[in-house]
Amino acid sequence: MANQDEHFKKVIAHAKEYGYIFPSSEIYDGLSAVYDYAQNGAELKKNIREYWWKAMVQMHENIVGIDAAIFMHPTTWKASGHVDAFNDPLIDNKDSKKRYRADVLVEDYVAKIEAKIEKEVAKAQKRFGDSFDKEQFLATNGRVIEYQERADTILKRLGKSLENEDLADVRALIDELEIADPETGSKNWTDVKQFNLMFGTKLGASADSAMDLYLRPETAQGIFVNFLNVQKTGRMKIPFGIAQTGKAFRNEIVARQFIFRQREFEQMEMQFFVRPGEQKKWYETWKENRLKWHLSLGMGQDNYRFHDHEKLAHYADAATDIEFRFPFGFKELEGIHSRTDFDLGNHEKFSGKKLQYFDPELNESYVPYVVETSIGLDRMFLAVFSNALRDEELENGSTRTVLKIPAVLAPTKAAVLPLLKKDGLPEVARKIVDDLKWDFMIQYDDKDAVGRRYRRQDAAGTPFCITVDHQTLEDDTVTIRHRDTMEQQRVSISELRGIIARETDIRTWLMRMDEAEKTV
Amino acid sequence: MANQDEHFKKVIAHAKEYGYIFPSSEIYDGLSAVYDYAQNGAELKKNIREYWWKAMVQMHENIVGIDAAIFMHPTTWKASGHVDAFNDPLIDNKDSKKRYRADVLVEDYVAKIEAKIEKEVAKAQKRFGDSFDKEQFLATNGRVIEYQERADTILKRLGKSLENEDLADVRALIDELEIADPETGSKNWTDVKQFNLMFGTKLGASADSAMDLYLRPETAQGIFVNFLNVQKTGRMKIPFGIAQTGKAFRNEIVARQFIFRQREFEQMEMQFFVRPGEQKKWYETWKENRLKWHLSLGMGQDNYRFHDHEKLAHYADAATDIEFRFPFGFKELEGIHSRTDFDLGNHEKFSGKKLQYFDPELNESYVPYVVETSIGLDRMFLAVFSNALRDEELENGSTRTVLKIPAVLAPTKAAVLPLLKKDGLPEVARKIVDDLKWDFMIQYDDKDAVGRRYRRQDAAGTPFCITVDHQTLEDDTVTIRHRDTMEQQRVSISELRGIIARETDIRTWLMRMDEAEKTV
Repeated sequence: MANQDEHFKKVIAHAKEYGYIFPSSEIYDGLSAVYDYAQNGAELKKNIREYWWKAMVQMHENIVGIDAAIFMHPTTWKASGHVDAFNDPLIDNKDSKKRYRADVLVEDYVAKIEAKIEKEVAKAQKRFGDSFDKEQFLATNGRVIEYQERADTILKRLGKSLENEDLADVRALIDELEIADPETGSKNWTDVKQFNLMFGTKLGASADSAMDLYLRPETAQGIFVNFLNVQKTGRMKIPFGIAQTGKAFRNEIVARQFIFRQREFEQMEMQFFVRPGEQKKWYETWKENRLKWHLSLGMGQDNYRFHDHEKLAHYADAATDIEFRFPFGFKELEGIHSRTDFDLGNHEKFSGKKLQYFDPELNESYVPYVVETSIGLDRMFLAVFSNALRDEELENGSTRTVLKIPAVLAPTKAAVLPLLKKDGLPEVARKIVDDLKWDFMIQYDDKDAVGRRYRRQDAAGTPFCITVDHQTLEDDTVTIRHRDTMEQQRVSISELRGIIARETDIRTWLMRMDEAEKTV
Repeated sequence: MANQDEHFKKVIAHAKEYGYIFPSSEIYDGLSAVYDYAQNGAELKKNIREYWWKAMVQMHENIVGIDAAIFMHPTTWKASGHVDAFNDPLIDNKDSKKRYRADVLVEDYVAKIEAKIEKEVAKAQKRFGDSFDKEQFLATNGRVIEYQERADTILKRLGKSLENEDLADVRALIDELEIADPETGSKNWTDVKQFNLMFGTKLGASADSAMDLYLRPETAQGIFVNFLNVQKTGRMKIPFGIAQTGKAFRNEIVARQFIFRQREFEQMEMQFFVRPGEQKKWYETWKENRLKWHLSLGMGQDNYRFHDHEKLAHYADAATDIEFRFPFGFKELEGIHSRTDFDLGNHEKFSGKKLQYFDPELNESYVPYVVETSIGLDRMFLAVFSNALRDEELENGSTRTVLKIPAVLAPTKAAVLPLLKKDGLPEVARKIVDDLKWDFMIQYDDKDAVGRRYRRQDAAGTPFCITVDHQTLEDDTVTIRHRDTMEQQRVSISELRGIIARETDIRTWLMRMDEAEKTV
């Protein structure tokens, strides 16, 4: 755990130092849980978005993209259930005036019990060494069994209370467990109340005609309300998908873990419309397809796992998360949900408009079922960035910090370095920049010794450094240095475009989705 | 004017019918002045954004991009002047309960006077024919001079009242001119009041700790607050620029003209930081550069004009608009502003942090001056779309509707059409799609007779139709039809990628900026 924390801290510091992420409005001391993407971060984010869009929209004949507004008619959020049910149970401490999520207080209490179990396991492991059988120990050790039962009982009761919206019982549970304000130790709590997570605003100027609007808490509904317009004007045949990327907003009480849970964030979602009854098949298809997309980036198969939901949301008949090993452990990166006809059906009800598809093969009309793939762009950014950051020990005993971002996503594809700032080397280097920049993001870098420039570009995540030296003047060759291996090749200037394209083209990388198939 | 209105109506209808733009939340009867970009619109918008980004960021070594959050610390908007001065003067009619912008009521009144002048001109023109000299007529005709003086007097008084925030005088002017509610004719007005155009919301849950936030009314401030972070981590040397694209929000009272003035819109802005005293030079440079960017798209040199501001905003020492001939006349498409050190200086004041650059050549520190280029992405979309839509008369006497979107921006680059749905033609067509889709947005289209498919793709703006026929099975050739000329060529399948790339590559188009130079 200490190592994880250490790494996470490095990630956050490195993201700022190398121009990836700044705290929002930092000159005004920041805005809690809001971040700005800096010069390198903006490019990485853009490249991730493009990699997703190309894989989901461009490569699929039966998927189209849209770009719906953040503002939507407020009835949308009645129909989607967000007005009534998108709440967190909050509790205030009367002494400290601090506000907490009541369910998180209980879960943190349970986490402490689970920590005790881990401690017992660690002790036993130390005692028994290689012969230690963890499964058996968990199933037979009396103290551990007692802890586990206690944790289960609490979580089951919490789940039930929340499901029944019995907030008085959540409060009773907090009292019974004698949970105190983690900051002050006070147990002087208010009742538990529901708090809606949508940001509200008002459209229009006059007091009597102003309309209450919400900032969308998810992009999915922008797809559902446009379903029939897209189907008709695009002459789409089921099965087909509608994709979009865009901002969503949630007034999280406890936003934390850097860009993992922000109040303003970006989603990349695709809603796939299918015949009722065929949703399970498509759910499996998209589960597999989306994992392959992740694996194509080569960020380590062991860093992903599926987490199938046992408790399903009211709108779903199947759901799984693709979890990624973040610096703080395995957490949801993407969700694949079989949403049934819940959304379209509700929009039919609330709008009074038919949202049905006439299926020419079946010769009948129906409300399609929907399978959704939904990934957080900021989370994907964090996955890529945190996974890429390494401290490597070199053969000569020194270490280097390197950001091994998959080359297809790297903000700058190559830096061009004149060995010296004289003898005409800068002029040649600039000519190379001017030529390559038509196709790639390229930097010119002439400050400091060349070794230091290599280190700087390693830490910034640039896959290639191209060095212009005196030999270049004679034979039009340069050295190209590979970030990941630190290998250097001597190549002719005319080969550069081809080399960089081969290593950074989206096509090259997406093709790896097929190779991934064999290993899933 | 009738023709213009007619064309504009066609633009709006065509945008919906061909999947470019839908009214937002249309199943709930829409949301005023908010629109969703549909399957073709989303691609066109994305392509415009990319064309801008490539020209502004990728091609300029000294310009980097960022992606700042929509939420910013509220003090940002105190410093920028938006809290105090981003207002519209509003007036209510007591009888109709309708609300209007007081200044617009007066301006509409003046527009009627100007219409009378135009009428006199038209009459005289008809009378005198070829020998008519408009300039001379305007300078000598007694009635026209009287009209013009009246219009000038009113506008001057309005300008002065607004500048002095003398809202009582704006109200007095409305009374004196006997301006009535345009919908009901009532002259029963309230006082004029200032109304702030920023959308507000609240961050955080607890009543006492909630923070008043604004949705940013412009993206520029996200650049200014990050200026020093970008300069330092990016090791930028003045002059350098920071660019970004993103959503902004304005609670417009009278939002109108389709996507021209929306409450939620997207900006593409670049702030260029220069030495104090050099701003005029850079202002001229960017004026020229931005016009060239527009001209590179080949949408007609006559459709652009500069409109230099005579009355400058409080932060500017020079400002111009690039105006475009929209369906409703010449209107602002892009602004180039020399913003002085107003923004950075104010952020220094309000944040207490130094926002200075140490200039190694001058060996001194200063607050840089700023030259801004700011273009509305939605306006650019409307410019491209409305300019592209044509009804063309063909040689055979029939007409076709065609959307001549510059090929580099077109949503779908090519449609592949099997002549018949049999004889193995669909299989070959699909193989072409599967091959080309790695590089381009491609459609497969097999419904209806081929002539009808050509018309449909013309109207959707697809630059190329590729037709697979029986000859294809023999010699691997297809016909490629050009949208704009309707010419067809017989080419081999292996040539297709090259042809489409040549005509649609960003590089090819951006290179036209240099040709444009000669004609400015």
